[in-house]
Amino acid sequence: MNLSDIYEPIEDDLEKVEQSLEAVAHVDVPLLGQLLGYALTGGGKRIRPSLALLCGKFHLYDPALLVPMATAVELLHTATLVHDDIVDHSPIRRGKPTVSSAWGENRALLLGDYLFAKAASVAASTGNLRVIEQFAQALMTISGGEVRQTGIAFDLKEARDYYYEWISAKTACLFSLATESGAILSQSPEEVVEATKDYGHNLGMAFQILDDVLDFVGEEAEVGKPVGSDLGEGAVTLPSILFAESHPEDNLIKSVIEDRDAESVALAVEKIRNSPVIGECLAIAADFSSRACRAVEKLPDNSARQALLDLATYIIQRRK
Amino acid sequence: MNLSDIYEPIEDDLEKVEQSLEAVAHVDVPLLGQLLGYALTGGGKRIRPSLALLCGKFHLYDPALLVPMATAVELLHTATLVHDDIVDHSPIRRGKPTVSSAWGENRALLLGDYLFAKAASVAASTGNLRVIEQFAQALMTISGGEVRQTGIAFDLKEARDYYYEWISAKTACLFSLATESGAILSQSPEEVVEATKDYGHNLGMAFQILDDVLDFVGEEAEVGKPVGSDLGEGAVTLPSILFAESHPEDNLIKSVIEDRDAESVALAVEKIRNSPVIGECLAIAADFSSRACRAVEKLPDNSARQALLDLATYIIQRRK
Repeated sequence: MNLSDIYEPIEDDLEKVEQSLEAVAHVDVPLLGQLLGYALTGGGKRIRPSLALLCGKFHLYDPALLVPMATAVELLHTATLVHDDIVDHSPIRRGKPTVSSAWGENRALLLGDYLFAKAASVAASTGNLRVIEQFAQALMTISGGEVRQTGIAFDLKEARDYYYEWISAKTACLFSLATESGAILSQSPEEVVEATKDYGHNLGMAFQILDDVLDFVGEEAEVGKPVGSDLGEGAVTLPSILFAESHPEDNLIKSVIEDRDAESVALAVEKIRNSPVIGECLAIAADFSSRACRAVEKLPDNSARQALLDLATYIIQRRK
Repeated sequence: MNLSDIYEPIEDDLEKVEQSLEAVAHVDVPLLGQLLGYALTGGGKRIRPSLALLCGKFHLYDPALLVPMATAVELLHTATLVHDDIVDHSPIRRGKPTVSSAWGENRALLLGDYLFAKAASVAASTGNLRVIEQFAQALMTISGGEVRQTGIAFDLKEARDYYYEWISAKTACLFSLATESGAILSQSPEEVVEATKDYGHNLGMAFQILDDVLDFVGEEAEVGKPVGSDLGEGAVTLPSILFAESHPEDNLIKSVIEDRDAESVALAVEKIRNSPVIGECLAIAADFSSRACRAVEKLPDNSARQALLDLATYIIQRRK
């Protein structure tokens, strides 16, 4: 099963989201337009906007509200990626140079700010105050979570809890904004809103764990960035944590994140990718995915519900 | 005349804004709280929140809406300062180290993002969609203007126009957001809204020109940062532009911004501060200030109107 099959119930409106994203780059400052075009096209899976559209399919589906919201969610996502790549000094994303490496950190910083503002403006165009407030809260959660992360030293006892809080703030939060806002903007009953929010959170957790696993076991050509990038940047994700937990006598992870020389990073990546922790991480991702599916079971049965279930499967089986 | 006299008609509510800003720093992530406290306290003139409050005094003054809006405007302003200081690599602001120099650029970037989000959230709490939309537009104008600025090479023929567009986007835009939103949130008639917007724009232009003059002629102890910082960072402001216009045979400015060695920057600053262009810049600032005053004349006569007039005078006479 591929994404375009899953997206079938909303493919026309997803195309409108794509057009809206292209239209964002039509500004009268040529340099800004160039940066926007670069950041907004090429390689995104469009999972978050699709979630907003699909979760609008359980009551009064209104593309005049859902297409802008889906666009806003993708703009916000892109803004966070552009700023993340500055913070992490990442050279490559989705197989091409990041904005910060191609255009410099200053322009990337300002581009991210512009994208936040544009996202807020497009979200505001729905005229729905509840959604606008959730939108602002999501951005607070994401940036506040990243600030917190910069102040945490590696501590094996707390590492797993910190990791879950971190990926909840950086990824699951935006997934649940997408799903919940879709339900709200289609005037769904509160139990539907709650179910979509629950689905979005758990799907986001599964999605991020898979991303973190693929950073160890993926193929560079598919993932679009070098294997082991996270550990090389000092980010301790679930595979490293489970490895450290299962080798309490071994200081490998702690020393790697303290030194970060290329050779010891490569050795740690090699050890982890050939250890049972990869399977354990996949099992944890599958568990979040099945929680997402259980939340969906409370929704009315239609093609969008099936798409949400399929997406929960797709997300934990993907290779990029 | 000092600012606290001018702020007298709104002093109680300005104190509430101050308390709201302090409350922003009460978050459950200690590092984030520390960064917020550092950025939000100490040394700000609070001109923008005062403008929002004062411009709410011409119809149905409602502190329940105006205090949050004034807070949101100051949060947005602070966010742009934190990000600006990264872009400009500024070591000092208001006499103390910038967030980026004291805490690192990554934390400053994330703190700025959090402040944008918090500002949007507080603005959204007014429940006024027109104001929320203007808020997002202002952030687009500010960040888009800065992107544009990074792509402009010094060209004497266009320099003055570019400068006015630049300071309109980076400063006057936020002043007019403050004034206009104050009028809108007090349900003022459209002609009052227009007059406050016009006032805010012209006051912001005058304010920025004074800032740029003080960068040449101010005392470091009063201005809170080293004299000549702008030119040292490659920013060509009105004094440099007027100097270059009046010395078309002299390539001083062009060579200074190309080389930026400390000695030639110091020489240029010395030449400019002792030239007639400082007086010419002050005359241009005074002209914007008087346009601001003419806009105010359309407003009902009360103590807030007098404060706006006094502020227009204060702004062009200040030494810091």
